Amino acid sequence: VFESAERTAVPGVATGLAVTGAGGDVLFIEATAMDGESGLTLTGQLGDVMKESAQIAWSYLRSHGRQLGIDPSGLVGKRIHLHVPAGAVPKDGPSAGITMVTALASLASGRPVRPEFGMTGEVTLAGRVLPIGGVKQKLLAAHRAGLTEVIIPARNEPDLDDLPDEVRKALTIHVTGEVSEVLRLALRPAESETGAQPLVGAAA
Amino acid sequence: VFESAERTAVPGVATGLAVTGAGGDVLFIEATAMDGESGLTLTGQLGDVMKESAQIAWSYLRSHGRQLGIDPSGLVGKRIHLHVPAGAVPKDGPSAGITMVTALASLASGRPVRPEFGMTGEVTLAGRVLPIGGVKQKLLAAHRAGLTEVIIPARNEPDLDDLPDEVRKALTIHVTGEVSEVLRLALRPAESETGAQPLVGAAA
Amino acid sequence: VFESAERTAVPGVATGLAVTGAGGDVLFIEATAMDGESGLTLTGQLGDVMKESAQIAWSYLRSHGRQLGIDPSGLVGKRIHLHVPAGAVPKDGPSAGITMVTALASLASGRPVRPEFGMTGEVTLAGRVLPIGGVKQKLLAAHRAGLTEVIIPARNEPDLDDLPDEVRKALTIHVTGEVSEVLRLALRPAESETGAQPLVGAAA
Amino acid sequence: VFESAERTAVPGVATGLAVTGAGGDVLFIEATAMDGESGLTLTGQLGDVMKESAQIAWSYLRSHGRQLGIDPSGLVGKRIHLHVPAGAVPKDGPSAGITMVTALASLASGRPVRPEFGMTGEVTLAGRVLPIGGVKQKLLAAHRAGLTEVIIPARNEPDLDDLPDEVRKALTIHVTGEVSEVLRLALRPAESETGAQPLVGAAA
Amino acid sequence: VFESAERTAVPGVATGLAVTGAGGDVLFIEATAMDGESGLTLTGQLGDVMKESAQIAWSYLRSHGRQLGIDPSGLVGKRIHLHVPAGAVPKDGPSAGITMVTALASLASGRPVRPEFGMTGEVTLAGRVLPIGGVKQKLLAAHRAGLTEVIIPARNEPDLDDLPDEVRKALTIHVTGEVSEVLRLALRPAESETGAQPLVGAAA
Amino acid sequence: VFESAERTAVPGVATGLAVTGAGGDVLFIEATAMDGESGLTLTGQLGDVMKESAQIAWSYLRSHGRQLGIDPSGLVGKRIHLHVPAGAVPKDGPSAGITMVTALASLASGRPVRPEFGMTGEVTLAGRVLPIGGVKQKLLAAHRAGLTEVIIPARNEPDLDDLPDEVRKALTIHVTGEVSEVLRLALRPAESETGAQPLVGAAA
Ligand SMILES: [Ca+2]
Ligand SMILES: [Ca+2]
Ligand SMILES: [Ca+2]
Ligand SMILES: [Ca+2]
Ligand SMILES: [Ca+2]
Ligand SMILES: [Ca+2]
Ligand SMILES: [Ca+2]
Ligand SMILES: [Ca+2]
Ligand SMILES: [Ca+2]
Ligand SMILES: [Ca+2]
Ligand SMILES: [Ca+2]
Ligand SMILES: [Ca+2]
Repeated sequence: VFESAERTAVPGVATGLAVTGAGGDVLFIEATAMDGESGLTLTGQLGDVMKESAQIAWSYLRSHGRQLGIDPSGLVGKRIHLHVPAGAVPKDGPSAGITMVTALASLASGRPVRPEFGMTGEVTLAGRVLPIGGVKQKLLAAHRAGLTEVIIPARNEPDLDDLPDEVRKALTIHVTGEVSEVLRLALRPAESETGAQPLVGAAA
Repeated sequence: VFESAERTAVPGVATGLAVTGAGGDVLFIEATAMDGESGLTLTGQLGDVMKESAQIAWSYLRSHGRQLGIDPSGLVGKRIHLHVPAGAVPKDGPSAGITMVTALASLASGRPVRPEFGMTGEVTLAGRVLPIGGVKQKLLAAHRAGLTEVIIPARNEPDLDDLPDEVRKALTIHVTGEVSEVLRLALRPAESETGAQPLVGAAA
Repeated sequence: VFESAERTAVPGVATGLAVTGAGGDVLFIEATAMDGESGLTLTGQLGDVMKESAQIAWSYLRSHGRQLGIDPSGLVGKRIHLHVPAGAVPKDGPSAGITMVTALASLASGRPVRPEFGMTGEVTLAGRVLPIGGVKQKLLAAHRAGLTEVIIPARNEPDLDDLPDEVRKALTIHVTGEVSEVLRLALRPAESETGAQPLVGAAA
Repeated sequence: VFESAERTAVPGVATGLAVTGAGGDVLFIEATAMDGESGLTLTGQLGDVMKESAQIAWSYLRSHGRQLGIDPSGLVGKRIHLHVPAGAVPKDGPSAGITMVTALASLASGRPVRPEFGMTGEVTLAGRVLPIGGVKQKLLAAHRAGLTEVIIPARNEPDLDDLPDEVRKALTIHVTGEVSEVLRLALRPAESETGAQPLVGAAA
Repeated sequence: VFESAERTAVPGVATGLAVTGAGGDVLFIEATAMDGESGLTLTGQLGDVMKESAQIAWSYLRSHGRQLGIDPSGLVGKRIHLHVPAGAVPKDGPSAGITMVTALASLASGRPVRPEFGMTGEVTLAGRVLPIGGVKQKLLAAHRAGLTEVIIPARNEPDLDDLPDEVRKALTIHVTGEVSEVLRLALRPAESETGAQPLVGAAA
Repeated sequence: VFESAERTAVPGVATGLAVTGAGGDVLFIEATAMDGESGLTLTGQLGDVMKESAQIAWSYLRSHGRQLGIDPSGLVGKRIHLHVPAGAVPKDGPSAGITMVTALASLASGRPVRPEFGMTGEVTLAGRVLPIGGVKQKLLAAHRAGLTEVIIPARNEPDLDDLPDEVRKALTIHVTGEVSEVLRLALRPAESETGAQPLVGAAA
């Protein structure tokens, strides 16, 4: 996870899995906050559906974050900017939803995302994780990129049958129907909880 | 009502009935509120007519809610976000109107929607329920999804003749011309009214 | 006037006459007011011309209402929502102008619109009533719907020659060039003026 | 000037001259002001050029009115609505510019426009009157409508050669290059200046 | 310079040079300021590039004016309206940039533009004057219009070879790469600097 | 570096490298700040991707500037205007990202950009420098324009093989994956750091 480790070293960056014309790929969701007019700035040539995903992710955290131990109040009244490189590549679809929630929750809590994790899944406003397409290509891409833990929607579990055995063995695959579970898995613990600087894990 | 029970367990989610290219289907309207610029955020690839339905639903509650025992004042001055999964599926038409009123009334009152209820009907700004299309496919879909109570517009009563007998028997079908009646049927009573935690009903 | 009586029972609803692909029809203009950002929300798939009619109607009342005994000040600083069901049917044209003024004047004054009245006519910002098309189809539709009083623009009086005798006899037809006259005819008197609850009239 | 006298009886209405597909025609510019968000509301299916004319007219009065004895301060901070009936007829072009200045100056000063006057001419932000097209058809229309005084741009004087003698004799034609001159000609004097209610003139 | 003298007699108007379908022409940039929401109103059917030129001109003056002795603070917080007659003629391109800076600087300083001057040149945000096209046609038009002094970008100096000798002799041609130089040339001195009313010069 | 030296003499201007239809070219990013509504004004006929680059650059500086010794607080609450001459030439693509960060950092810090530097590279919201296209044409253009130092993305290092030897020798080529490194290289030191006016270097 050389690239992922570098990219997710700071809070606010999460690793997603996407399908492109040329198979699967990893993408990074970068979030930052600054003083300015309250609201979301979205860049990365995002299509309508993906922009709506970002709105859903941000609304979910604002209305449910506190129940999950993610206090979003430090971000309220700020300008949130969410970018998905590469800047010239058009992107669309709902499957980055849980990655967007994770990036924003990381930013809000100051807890970095575990670099060995990649994830894909649509999120609803009530925090459900809905199924998405391209599971096989996405997990192959995760493996190629050196990731060792992936999160997919519970309803996509049947798609795992198509995965080559060696990839399946190399990856720890988490299936879940709730975005609260995604955050428990992918965010490093707060430093005060562990009393120690959390390690990046064996995959690093 | 396995999925519906899970999805409607929290206030702000109501179960609608829709017609898609592949017959009828159930859909969930999710509503949440947060601090922010007053107004509606609408996601789920909603078309013009469906976006107007959401505006009508919200205006109806703000101007008539108090007469119905639904105090909307806790939502005034907040950002209301209304989402209709699945995020990538375009949706349009006026028939989700009463479901939107119900989701917002549930959110405003803190009273969850009864999970055994599905509904369809256009709403007007004065609270009338106008007829919609696809009643047969919608009720078949409600039955398939395990719902046991449905609400349809009064003027759609003649469409019930086309419904197979076994479905007609399995469903309790409420016909009404007033959205105030929809709320009386579909919202669980406030806990203080019953002195007891309301049960989900025999269908659960 | 069964439907019209039900629909216009509350202040803020007026009955208009329209021409559709299938002949004439009655339509209802519903207006309501609520706290929120000052301005007009317009729904019902209204075209450009019809949206402008609503702006004209609202500006007319704000600048001339007081001269007519209609005090609009209770609506100033509020969000006015004006809806024209059915929500999925596109509508356009200027002929709903006087109906929109009437609905807003009813809302502002709390005086319901007389349910036996239907009306059609373009309104100008200075309060003139300009001629419209489709008078014959509109009056036939008014008659079919059980209305007994109609208001049309003065300059449309020649079109009455085309009307079948039995319809002409059944309807009381008011012709006028001034929207102030429309309001005098169509709004019920304020209760304080009559000392008695106004009756809906013989047609009810 | 039966129609013009009726229409211009109140301050804020001025009579313009236009060219339509069917020759020349008179049109009325109606202006009104109300409490609300500062700015211009423009209706009457106006095209881009005509909307810009309205902005120019309003900016001209705000920046130069006081020099001309027209104090615009009563309109500043108000919502100005400018409508050009008929509502469904698309209109465009710059030639209503001086008519718009006149309507707004009439509204600001409370001085009605003389009903026997019609006018046409583009206005610039510095108050120049620029030439327009269709002078012959416009003056024929003014004559047909019973107007007896018309204002045209100085640079259109050569177009008067094409006018039939009887029309030229019946009309008093004012040519000018300055919009300040238009206002001196077309607005009735303030009552306080004359000590007497100004008469409408021989044409009435 | 009969027309130019009349048009530029007041502060806020500058004479530009343009290329049209029918050769070169002079155009006037008119600027005015009024109370209202801070920002630019642009009229005259300006294209995207020309609207951006106006923004650049206004930003340049706000950030660099004071170094040039042009204090823009009287215009800050005001509505600036910039119009380019004739109102119905579409215009585009960057070559009016220095004329726009000059009109705005004239407005801000109260110093009228010298009426014998015409100018053309793109301006950058840092105050550079970039080359433009159509120099020959523009200078012929300046000469025809009676102007005697013109300003062109330094990098357009080679284009002067194409100019007829008699025009080249009749015009004083200033070439410059800095918009600060344009303002020094084209604005009349402040009255306080000269102790005397500045004359318009021999060309008047 | 004659032109570059002139153009970058003031803080807020940085030299980029672009590919056009006619090979590579240098372009200047000009940034300025003024009182006004907080936000970005972007001119120069920038396409969607390039406008997003500007937003990313500005958000990056606001959220990470202070760590880099670039205090953006003097620009917060101001209107930032970013222009890319020439005004009429459409431009797009992400490769001006690091040049935009540099221009804004120069403006915020008051430290001019070294005139002998040209640069190209996409920037991400977290400050990574991503690879771009056209390295060979861009470096040839830098050389032709007299620049002697260039910055390119680390991942573009392999493209340097295509560069003619004499150009490669004439240029000092910096490769980096971090925009913080770009700023360390390209901005002149603050005067207080050196105790002396920094020189422009041997290339001037
Ligand atoms: Ca789309
Ligand atoms: Ca996707
Ligand atoms: Ca539509
Ligand atoms: Ca539907
Ligand atoms: Ca239209
Ligand atoms: Ca109509
Ligand atoms: Ca146009
Ligand atoms: Ca015209
Ligand atoms: Ca363009
Ligand atoms: Ca030009
Ligand atoms: Ca694009
Ligand atoms: Ca590029």
